[in-house]
Amino acid sequence: MKKNMAELIGTFALVLFGCGAAVISGVSPSGPSGIGLLGIAFAFGLAVVAMAYAIGPISGCHINPAITIAMMVAGKTTTKDGIGYIISQFIGALLGALALKIIANGKPDFTMQEWALGSNGWGDGYGGAYSMTSAFITETVLTFLFLMVIFGSTAKNASPAMAGLAIGITLVLIHLVAIPITGTSVNPARSFGPAVLAGGKALSQLWLFMIAPVLGGLIAALFWKGVFEKA
Amino acid sequence: MKKNMAELIGTFALVLFGCGAAVISGVSPSGPSGIGLLGIAFAFGLAVVAMAYAIGPISGCHINPAITIAMMVAGKTTTKDGIGYIISQFIGALLGALALKIIANGKPDFTMQEWALGSNGWGDGYGGAYSMTSAFITETVLTFLFLMVIFGSTAKNASPAMAGLAIGITLVLIHLVAIPITGTSVNPARSFGPAVLAGGKALSQLWLFMIAPVLGGLIAALFWKGVFEKA
Amino acid sequence: MKKNMAELIGTFALVLFGCGAAVISGVSPSGPSGIGLLGIAFAFGLAVVAMAYAIGPISGCHINPAITIAMMVAGKTTTKDGIGYIISQFIGALLGALALKIIANGKPDFTMQEWALGSNGWGDGYGGAYSMTSAFITETVLTFLFLMVIFGSTAKNASPAMAGLAIGITLVLIHLVAIPITGTSVNPARSFGPAVLAGGKALSQLWLFMIAPVLGGLIAALFWKGVFEKA
Amino acid sequence: MKKNMAELIGTFALVLFGCGAAVISGVSPSGPSGIGLLGIAFAFGLAVVAMAYAIGPISGCHINPAITIAMMVAGKTTTKDGIGYIISQFIGALLGALALKIIANGKPDFTMQEWALGSNGWGDGYGGAYSMTSAFITETVLTFLFLMVIFGSTAKNASPAMAGLAIGITLVLIHLVAIPITGTSVNPARSFGPAVLAGGKALSQLWLFMIAPVLGGLIAALFWKGVFEKA
Repeated sequence: MKKNMAELIGTFALVLFGCGAAVISGVSPSGPSGIGLLGIAFAFGLAVVAMAYAIGPISGCHINPAITIAMMVAGKTTTKDGIGYIISQFIGALLGALALKIIANGKPDFTMQEWALGSNGWGDGYGGAYSMTSAFITETVLTFLFLMVIFGSTAKNASPAMAGLAIGITLVLIHLVAIPITGTSVNPARSFGPAVLAGGKALSQLWLFMIAPVLGGLIAALFWKGVFEKA
Repeated sequence: MKKNMAELIGTFALVLFGCGAAVISGVSPSGPSGIGLLGIAFAFGLAVVAMAYAIGPISGCHINPAITIAMMVAGKTTTKDGIGYIISQFIGALLGALALKIIANGKPDFTMQEWALGSNGWGDGYGGAYSMTSAFITETVLTFLFLMVIFGSTAKNASPAMAGLAIGITLVLIHLVAIPITGTSVNPARSFGPAVLAGGKALSQLWLFMIAPVLGGLIAALFWKGVFEKA
Repeated sequence: MKKNMAELIGTFALVLFGCGAAVISGVSPSGPSGIGLLGIAFAFGLAVVAMAYAIGPISGCHINPAITIAMMVAGKTTTKDGIGYIISQFIGALLGALALKIIANGKPDFTMQEWALGSNGWGDGYGGAYSMTSAFITETVLTFLFLMVIFGSTAKNASPAMAGLAIGITLVLIHLVAIPITGTSVNPARSFGPAVLAGGKALSQLWLFMIAPVLGGLIAALFWKGVFEKA
Repeated sequence: MKKNMAELIGTFALVLFGCGAAVISGVSPSGPSGIGLLGIAFAFGLAVVAMAYAIGPISGCHINPAITIAMMVAGKTTTKDGIGYIISQFIGALLGALALKIIANGKPDFTMQEWALGSNGWGDGYGGAYSMTSAFITETVLTFLFLMVIFGSTAKNASPAMAGLAIGITLVLIHLVAIPITGTSVNPARSFGPAVLAGGKALSQLWLFMIAPVLGGLIAALFWKGVFEKA
């Protein structure tokens, strides 16, 4: 129960901080320049760093169903724990998006169009208008590399104190490449929260962000077990 | 006495570095572009990292009355220590704002309007003109999440060497979301210093930054003790 | 075999993340501002941090022939291991550039001119149009300093947990100085991948990025052994 | 001898990386935006992180006469070591500035005016045109706070593995506040190198950057010994 609560809070924070930074601070309303793509990338990654040191000792801080599924396949998380984690992650992400919507509604000229900045997508009218194929490949490959870092930094011969920092830094990095392509998901729950509230195209394109990250995570789990952990 | 002196210097540094970065470097006077919202966010958070490794071993480096109160409620700081800490934090913040004012006055075209960049606030004429409700929710929720990281990273099973870095990174993150809403406080002392010297709206809106962060910290203390630390 | 696979994946990731950040996110297609030179510098350096914690415990995470050669000269890597490493690095870099090309082709208005952002070079039409002499000196001196950090942070009296972070941060730093001069290589494999696919000037200038980083690495190896490791 | 060589290389790297980032990458010649004040701040601070992990185990990585003098006064460095350190730091800084000048001369339209970006100064025509008083106070107070972090993070009860990172992060922070005021020195050697080559105003204003950082360091040493280290 503690673990599920931790995953819920962690995913809540990831969506509120990451999508919030994009929606609220991406472009500055006045004075100094907004945080831009660089600041948004840092927000998503540093949210993972923050939560890793907050709830890591409680639940392991997956806050991402693609990670939990990969961990189950690799035999590092039980199926029972995993199912509770995934449900908690989706609830947390939805609550995070809801909190962001309530806060953003307090801005006089806030429109749902701005809100779309927090959703994932591709194609016409989204970022650099990359194709669905580019989006799918990107999400799959980047989740594969994300899991490489997660398996490596939490292995027995690794430095446990550094894992949260290394994993969060990797998520900064993933966002530095992929925001113009898909807005960067590598996390079905992170895509789910904003999409449900935004509706429209964000919802109709949600399927890709359910499938591609999980596929990338599965390949990583099989590869890690079959190649790097093999005696 | 040593501890109180440490808290005073730490809060002095937080205000001088954080508000100073906004007032002095937010928009560059010439040449390369100013540090923008991203640089201001880093300044506040890295000030906490710096002070955590400077005075952490002496006082624990709270430099924030909302943290000290949450620590007292959670039974991790004595009431006697806590009161001395809070007084020192308010004095340090005021001295930090004063030092910044003296330095900024050395700029030929410096005006108190620029100075307002260092104060917290909301509504018409402040950042994105967010409502008071948005400001209150934001400050409460973000302080709650801030305290989650503080409790988690200083718990018995955590890596003490990483706590200062994790907590400072979280403050970077909090600023990445909230600068357009309130300028980001999550710290009554940090709001107090600039407001006293700026007066006007900064002073009349100070109450929210006294109440909301403390409320968020209290909820976090009760939640951490009642849920995550419960056997 | 495991080690070679690790070096291949690591160099694949370095090129995909580093060059990908430049090509895809350097200038934003819409909305918030692009990541700029600062974000590109972070992408290359954080890719090293990520890979250091992913594959460091497997292969040592060289992902750079100049490092592998310096390590061989300094007696820290066997010749047999080293040759396998270098071949894997060149293959990984080529695959990374290929993956980036496939993804970038999914952008409707993508042209090979944009692609050139990922290649190294100098002179007319490249960055600040610095001379070949400046390019050669820069690549040699910066690789020398890069190796100083690598030797120092992996020495016996160092903190092994911090080495990956320190080395990656140094690569951020190197990019902060050298992008306008050469695009920053300090790594023959990183230059090789994009150059082969881009052809033209990138390919005809490739020789400098094969020679200068290796020269810098050699000087560092001899200096470290002869001065700092001498009793 | 090893120690002096380490200090020379470290200060060489600090000036080449820090001033180099400002002169070469502050404003981008084409394509993505330049690194701006934020990137310059990171360059100086990350240079300290890099060098701390490279030469820290050899000499302690002062690479700053104000630090060496404060360490001598606090009884943590012998006078004999200290004098060798300081001479090496001034030579290293001069060589770093020279290397930068040679590289920058390879840019067709390079002028000494651009070069001035790497020098420290104040008043008319420098940054925000702050007064000499502001410059003096800023350099003294920020060096005082810098030394607080250095003494704290290298104290007996601190985490030695984190000291280099904490100290470098603090130098990032110091630059985030002070670039528009003085260009940020807190280090007589760092000011000396560029000033000697730039001449003119940079040279005639050099005295302040010799005196103020040393004064701030001295106050810090006396304060730390007299208050925080007192039983």
